[in-house]
Amino acid sequence: MNSRPPVILVQTERLRGQIADLFKAWGMSERAAHITADVMAYADTHGIDSHGVLMLPLYDELRQDGRLRLSVEPKLVRDRGATCLWDGSGGLGHHPSKLAMEMAIKKARTFGIGMASVRGSQHYGAAGAYAMQAAQEGLLGLSTSAVYRPGIVPTGGLIPMLGTNPIAFAAPGKTQPPFCLDMATSTVAVGKLKLAKLRGQQLPSGWSVDREGQPITDPKRALDIRHLTPLGALPELSSHKGYGLATMVEILSTVLSGAWFAPLHHAMGSGEGMSNVGHFFMAIDPTFMREEGAFEADLDAVASALRSTPAIDKAVPVQVAGDPERIQAARRKKEGIPLPLEMVTMIEKLCRASGCSFLLDGAS
Amino acid sequence: MNSRPPVILVQTERLRGQIADLFKAWGMSERAAHITADVMAYADTHGIDSHGVLMLPLYDELRQDGRLRLSVEPKLVRDRGATCLWDGSGGLGHHPSKLAMEMAIKKARTFGIGMASVRGSQHYGAAGAYAMQAAQEGLLGLSTSAVYRPGIVPTGGLIPMLGTNPIAFAAPGKTQPPFCLDMATSTVAVGKLKLAKLRGQQLPSGWSVDREGQPITDPKRALDIRHLTPLGALPELSSHKGYGLATMVEILSTVLSGAWFAPLHHAMGSGEGMSNVGHFFMAIDPTFMREEGAFEADLDAVASALRSTPAIDKAVPVQVAGDPERIQAARRKKEGIPLPLEMVTMIEKLCRASGCSFLLDGAS
Repeated sequence: MNSRPPVILVQTERLRGQIADLFKAWGMSERAAHITADVMAYADTHGIDSHGVLMLPLYDELRQDGRLRLSVEPKLVRDRGATCLWDGSGGLGHHPSKLAMEMAIKKARTFGIGMASVRGSQHYGAAGAYAMQAAQEGLLGLSTSAVYRPGIVPTGGLIPMLGTNPIAFAAPGKTQPPFCLDMATSTVAVGKLKLAKLRGQQLPSGWSVDREGQPITDPKRALDIRHLTPLGALPELSSHKGYGLATMVEILSTVLSGAWFAPLHHAMGSGEGMSNVGHFFMAIDPTFMREEGAFEADLDAVASALRSTPAIDKAVPVQVAGDPERIQAARRKKEGIPLPLEMVTMIEKLCRASGCSFLLDGAS
Repeated sequence: MNSRPPVILVQTERLRGQIADLFKAWGMSERAAHITADVMAYADTHGIDSHGVLMLPLYDELRQDGRLRLSVEPKLVRDRGATCLWDGSGGLGHHPSKLAMEMAIKKARTFGIGMASVRGSQHYGAAGAYAMQAAQEGLLGLSTSAVYRPGIVPTGGLIPMLGTNPIAFAAPGKTQPPFCLDMATSTVAVGKLKLAKLRGQQLPSGWSVDREGQPITDPKRALDIRHLTPLGALPELSSHKGYGLATMVEILSTVLSGAWFAPLHHAMGSGEGMSNVGHFFMAIDPTFMREEGAFEADLDAVASALRSTPAIDKAVPVQVAGDPERIQAARRKKEGIPLPLEMVTMIEKLCRASGCSFLLDGAS
């Protein structure tokens, strides 16, 4: 009974196909399903496990509850100058976000900078995927997103008011890979609490707080309460800065697009219905500022200098944002993505329930 | 001898006039002197004391060393689409930065979003002043800047590679004051180390590290070494995020504008000469996304909700970025700006040395 391995290795292509098939079985259009699967497989391939197939059960729950519409198409609401506004029509965020960043890139090629907002959306997966979309086209890319469920407690406060509101920023190098920062504005994501619990480890003071606002080190209690701190962790370590960044993300994503600020929406008594999540996208064409290739060459020089910083531990070189995910992706593209058996079983169950072929049996 | 008070109260207008006169005596044009004095007096009025008159001795030192040119004018180098590039001509950053943000605002009114880069510059004071320039015109404003001297040690590294690289973001409210985040991407600024030393207090573990990369709690040692941590403070509290944000600021400010990355420049053996600091400015016109007034009303609602978060200490309400500075400014506009006697004496000395009238004798 225990002879099956604890993880199953799955090739990116196979996983992408499985995700797309499942979304099609759930009523998503062919095109939307492939785009959504691309972004989710990007997360799993790059080791951003919390934003890949792990999300499928939640998406299934939301769609079954009528809180997520998967058969909808995004609509372009406004298109003026270097900006545009999309409405996600109550579906998942991946598809409208890819379209929005695509348009921001086009605008940036014409005007030097381009911006796109999305409202009426939901979870959009790994923010870095959209920033990288710009970097892969030779542009600087920035993306932020709100989250339908508050998780971050403001400095000095007692209840969560802001999502883990991510910021992603990417920029292309010349001979070196792109810079890619992809971070939640909380100190850590919920996934890190789960991992600590699994490993039986205490939490560092500052990851999470209790209902009185005091740091919790017991991972089980922290997971029950789910009150995350803003980046900075503790007031004396400047958590007001992380709180400020999370609010900036909320303004860019929610207020600018006309989406909903989750705590106010919940207060209005409709917290159990549809969400209206907003995202923000920006692209910059560096050739408007620099000679062709100069930006990329200088980015390489900065990244190389940072990687050459004398290290505390010579065996652990200083990294640049994007390095850990790239190292992970190189390994997983070769060896396959390790999926816990439990998750494979869960995917099989989702397939059976929706009449979709299960493709991961004995993968890779 | 000790009957004079430890601080002198100075009205904003008087301080602004004193700063402008001093810059004119140092060869700055009338217009540049007034703009620079405006931005510096903004810092002193808003309690951002580290970026106001406190900078004058450093500016004087740099100009006397021939590392800062005060009689120069900024040049518009590129102007294309929604973007433009300025060269600070080796002068202080305040003047070119005000012009750059002014142009970004104009571009945003035409294209929805506007961007301006500045290179060939130096210290530009409080980043928030430029973000607020946009907010005061009804736009969202973002500004970032590099710093000529590295202060932040990358996570896992042993030497400073990045400046305290600030991010400022402001957005206009309807009946409420603007949101205004103005933060260094280090855990704290050097000023906080000085304050702790002055008060004989130990530092929280994580503000500063020693030459082996270990946290220092003795403020004197910390000031001698000046190795600041990125926001997040400690690796286990996600200091790699603050390091990533500081690098993002460096890319936007330095690499995009064609300015110098300080560690490479110093490595080239010219660290003692002129600097070439870069800044980044962006403005967004919310009426391209929302009906007239909708953005401002929603921003008010978000800010009010955040301020109404149940507080750990009922006597200390949760604040929103910009609140502490605004409270400080209201008090200082009424009572005057408290300048330590030592600083007033220093300004008097600078005045005498350059034949400029000293205006702060017995202020307010």
